[in-house]
Amino acid sequence: MNNQTNFTMLCDFYELSMANGYFQTPLRNRITYFDAFFRSIPDKGGFAIAAGLEQVIDYIKNLHFTEEDIEYLRSKGGFVEEFLDYLRNFRFTGDIWAVPEGTTIFPREPIMTVRAPAIQAQFIETYILLVLNHQSLIATKSNRIVRAAAGRPVAEFGSRRAQGADAAILGARASYIAGCVGTACVQADRDYHVPATGTMAHSWVQMFPDEYTAFETYCKLYPNNATLLVDTYNVLRSGVPNAIKAIQTVLWPQGIRKCGIRIDSGDLTYLSKEARKMLDDAGLTECKIVASNSLDEYIIRGLLLEGARLDSFGVGERLITSKSDPVFGSVYKLAAIEDEAGNIIPKIKVSENVEKITVPHFKKVYRLYDRDTKKAIADVLTVHDEVIDDSKEYELIDPSFTWKRKKVSNFSAEELLKPIFKGGELVYELPSIDEIRENCIKHVGLLWDEIKRFENPQNYFVDLSERLLDIRAELLETNKNQ
Amino acid sequence: MNNQTNFTMLCDFYELSMANGYFQTPLRNRITYFDAFFRSIPDKGGFAIAAGLEQVIDYIKNLHFTEEDIEYLRSKGGFVEEFLDYLRNFRFTGDIWAVPEGTTIFPREPIMTVRAPAIQAQFIETYILLVLNHQSLIATKSNRIVRAAAGRPVAEFGSRRAQGADAAILGARASYIAGCVGTACVQADRDYHVPATGTMAHSWVQMFPDEYTAFETYCKLYPNNATLLVDTYNVLRSGVPNAIKAIQTVLWPQGIRKCGIRIDSGDLTYLSKEARKMLDDAGLTECKIVASNSLDEYIIRGLLLEGARLDSFGVGERLITSKSDPVFGSVYKLAAIEDEAGNIIPKIKVSENVEKITVPHFKKVYRLYDRDTKKAIADVLTVHDEVIDDSKEYELIDPSFTWKRKKVSNFSAEELLKPIFKGGELVYELPSIDEIRENCIKHVGLLWDEIKRFENPQNYFVDLSERLLDIRAELLETNKNQ
Repeated sequence: MNNQTNFTMLCDFYELSMANGYFQTPLRNRITYFDAFFRSIPDKGGFAIAAGLEQVIDYIKNLHFTEEDIEYLRSKGGFVEEFLDYLRNFRFTGDIWAVPEGTTIFPREPIMTVRAPAIQAQFIETYILLVLNHQSLIATKSNRIVRAAAGRPVAEFGSRRAQGADAAILGARASYIAGCVGTACVQADRDYHVPATGTMAHSWVQMFPDEYTAFETYCKLYPNNATLLVDTYNVLRSGVPNAIKAIQTVLWPQGIRKCGIRIDSGDLTYLSKEARKMLDDAGLTECKIVASNSLDEYIIRGLLLEGARLDSFGVGERLITSKSDPVFGSVYKLAAIEDEAGNIIPKIKVSENVEKITVPHFKKVYRLYDRDTKKAIADVLTVHDEVIDDSKEYELIDPSFTWKRKKVSNFSAEELLKPIFKGGELVYELPSIDEIRENCIKHVGLLWDEIKRFENPQNYFVDLSERLLDIRAELLETNKNQ
Repeated sequence: MNNQTNFTMLCDFYELSMANGYFQTPLRNRITYFDAFFRSIPDKGGFAIAAGLEQVIDYIKNLHFTEEDIEYLRSKGGFVEEFLDYLRNFRFTGDIWAVPEGTTIFPREPIMTVRAPAIQAQFIETYILLVLNHQSLIATKSNRIVRAAAGRPVAEFGSRRAQGADAAILGARASYIAGCVGTACVQADRDYHVPATGTMAHSWVQMFPDEYTAFETYCKLYPNNATLLVDTYNVLRSGVPNAIKAIQTVLWPQGIRKCGIRIDSGDLTYLSKEARKMLDDAGLTECKIVASNSLDEYIIRGLLLEGARLDSFGVGERLITSKSDPVFGSVYKLAAIEDEAGNIIPKIKVSENVEKITVPHFKKVYRLYDRDTKKAIADVLTVHDEVIDDSKEYELIDPSFTWKRKKVSNFSAEELLKPIFKGGELVYELPSIDEIRENCIKHVGLLWDEIKRFENPQNYFVDLSERLLDIRAELLETNKNQ
C-alpha cells in the first residue's frame, strides 16, 4: 500500500548538502521555524483548497534512512562519516501545525508551520511541498469543475493522462475531497476509499459483431449498472437506437428503468438534446446522459448555458493535470530561529522580486467570520503569542498599503493552524476522507460568492497584525544593506 | 524500490467491468491487437520523444492480483466468483512491440502494439498509457528546453512542484533521457542513476549571522562544489561581493578556481552581466553563473539572445509539469481481432470527431532515411506482413489527401517497433539510461532543423501504405451505416 512507502530519499540533494553542513557547525541543533505557503491561486481563482496533509503525516511517521540509502550516500562522496552515522537514527522530533485538509486557503498565509532542529526542518522541505502542492492543485481545480456542473455529479476519469502513478491515485483522492462523486481509478478506491466506477470502452463495442450485440450483452451482464457508450460509430443513427433497443429488450422485462448512455465525442449540446428526445420518445425518461471528452469548468458551464441535456460528467485530463494551470507554487521558507537561550529570532528573505519577500516570525493564522452572515471576512497573520479577542473590535490593516484600515466587530475568530505533531509524536486525529470532503463543502460555503467567481474574483483579505507589520518593516530595514 | 511496486490495481474500473464481461462470453480467449498512439504534439512542436517503456516492462512483469485485491473486488460486487478465481493466476501471456525509449515519435503511429487475449490486452490499458504519457511528455518538453540552452547544461530542479512522487522521480528520469545533465532529486539518482546535485537554499544563508559567514562556511565544507546562492538579500550589493570574498579567502589558498554562483530572482540578463563583470574584475574568470527561477525554453532563448552571461540553468516547475502543455494524449485502441481460425480481422473506431478515427489492423511502422543526408524522410504504417524494400523506389501517399503522392528512392528503411514480450516472456534487452540518452541524441539529430523549430515546425510525414489505405477506406464504408 502507498501508505507504507518510505519516501525519505525523495528529497532535493541540497537538503542533504545543507544537513551535512549544519551537522558540522554549531547550527546543528538550532531550533528553526519554517512556513509552507503559496503565492498565487491557480487559474486566477479567488481561493484554493488545502489537501495532502494525510500524506505528509505518513511521510513524517515513516521517515528513516535504510542502510542501502546510507551506502548510496557514501558512494556519492562529500558526506562526513559522522553525519552518515547520525542518519541511521534520524527521525523527526519536532512540531508541526497545519491547516486541515479541505479548508479554503489564500496566498501568503502559512498552510503548514514546522518547528524543529535545523537539519530536520530543512530536510523535509521537498516532500512536504510536493505533496501539498499536488493535492491542493487538484482539489482547487476539481472544486471549480464541480461548481460549474451546478449540482450534477462529476466523476474523475483521468488516470491515463495523469503525471505518474501518484498523480492518478492521489489526484483522485484530492478530486473527491473537493466534491467529485467518484473516480475511475481502482487503486484510489482500494487505498483511499474514493468510490470507483466504470462500464465500457469503445473497444467493448468493437469486439462484438455489431453494436447492438455489444449493448445487449452488457445489459445482460450488468443490468443494474448499464451505461452504454454510444459514439463508437454514429451517436444518433446507431448508438442511441441500439441502446434504446437493448434497454427495452433486456432491462425492461426485469423492471429496471435506471440506466444511462455516455457520449464521448461530437457536439455534446446538440447530441444530448437529440438523444434526450429519442430516449424520451421511447419511454426511457429515467435514462441518464453522461458526457465526457476533454471537459473542464468552462466547457461544462458553456454546455449547461446552451441547454445541453446532460445529467453528469466524466472529467479526465484537464482535471487530473489541472491543465490550464498545472503548478501550485507553494514554497517553504525559514521564518525564525531560536537562539541558545530559546528566544525566537524572526528571519526574512528579501529578494529582488517583491512578491518573493517573506513574512517573518513564528505565526498564527486567524480567520474572522461575520456573526450574522457566517461568511469569512478576512484572515489575519499574527505573532505566535498574539490573541485576537473576538469579543472586541479589531482593526484590519492592508499589508501593502498600511494606511488602508478597517475596523470590524461582531465577528468570531478561528485559528486555522492545528497541532499535528508535538515532539515528533502525532497529536492529530486523522479525519476520514468523507469528513474531509464535508469540511471542504463547509469551508467553500463560508466564502462570499464574489470570491468564488471564475473570472476576476474579489480579493480575499489576508492581513498582518500591526505587531507583525512592525517586525517585518524593521527586518526589511536591517537587511536591505546586508 | 519503485521497480518492485505492483501497480496491478492502478487500472480504470471499466477494465475490470469489461474483463468480467468478456470472461462470461466466448470472447474470453479471443486474441486482440491494441495500439498505443498519440494524436498531437505538446506545445505544437514538430516531434515528441518516446519514454517510459522500462516502467511498462516492470509493470507487465509484476502484474498479479493479491488475495487482498481479490477480496476488495468481491466487496465491490458485480464480479462473478469464477472471474475472481481466474484473477488469482492472472498473468500477461501475450506479445508486445514498442518503440525504444529516446526515439522520436509522431502523431497517429503506434508507439506500442499489444497482441493478447482480450481480457489481458484490455486490462493493461490504463497503466501503459499513464506511464508512456507522463514520461514522453516530460522528455519532449525537456528536450525543447535543452535545445534552447544551446549547449549549456540544464539540470532538472522541479521535484517540489511535480504532480506527486512518481512525477518527481520518473520525471527526472525522462528529463535526463532527453538531454538534461542531472537532477536535484536524490531518489532519481538512487533508483535510476540520474546524477543528482545541489548546494544550498536561501535558508542556509539566513541561518548564519550574515551572508558572508554563510558563504565562507559553505566554501570550507564543500571547497570542490561551492555554488553560492547570491540573491537572499541583494545580488549586486551583497551577494556577489560576499561570494567573491569567500571564494578568494577559502578556495584560492587551496588552489581551487572552479566554483559558481546562482541567481534565482530579479532580471537575470542584467544581473548576470553585472555579476560577470564583478567576478572577472576580481579575477574569478572560472566562476560559473547558474540561473534559475521559473525558466522554460522561451525564457532561456530570450536570455541568451539578450546576451545574458549564464553558463547553466536549473529548470523546475515548467519542465517537471510541462506547464505550457501538461497532457500527452496517447490513447489505446483496438486495431484488430483474430477469429477462431486465427485470421486477423481489422477493426476501426469511427467517431463524430474525424481526428478520433483510428488506423485499423495489426501494423508495422517503418522510418525511411535519406542515404545521402542520413535524415529521416517519413514514417510509413503498413500492414504487419508488408515489407518496404529499400533497394527499390517507394511511393509515399498522404493519408488525408491520397492524390498527394511522392516517389522516394536512395533511402534506407528501419522498423521502429521492436519485440518486447513474446508469449509473456521478456525478449528485450533493457538499455542503460545512458544508452537511452544516447539514442535520444541520435534520433533528434536525424531530424531536419525545420522539424525542430519551436514555432510552426514543418510537418513530418506519417503515411499509410496503399494497402492499409484501402483497408481503412473499406472499413469506413462498412461501418458508416452500422
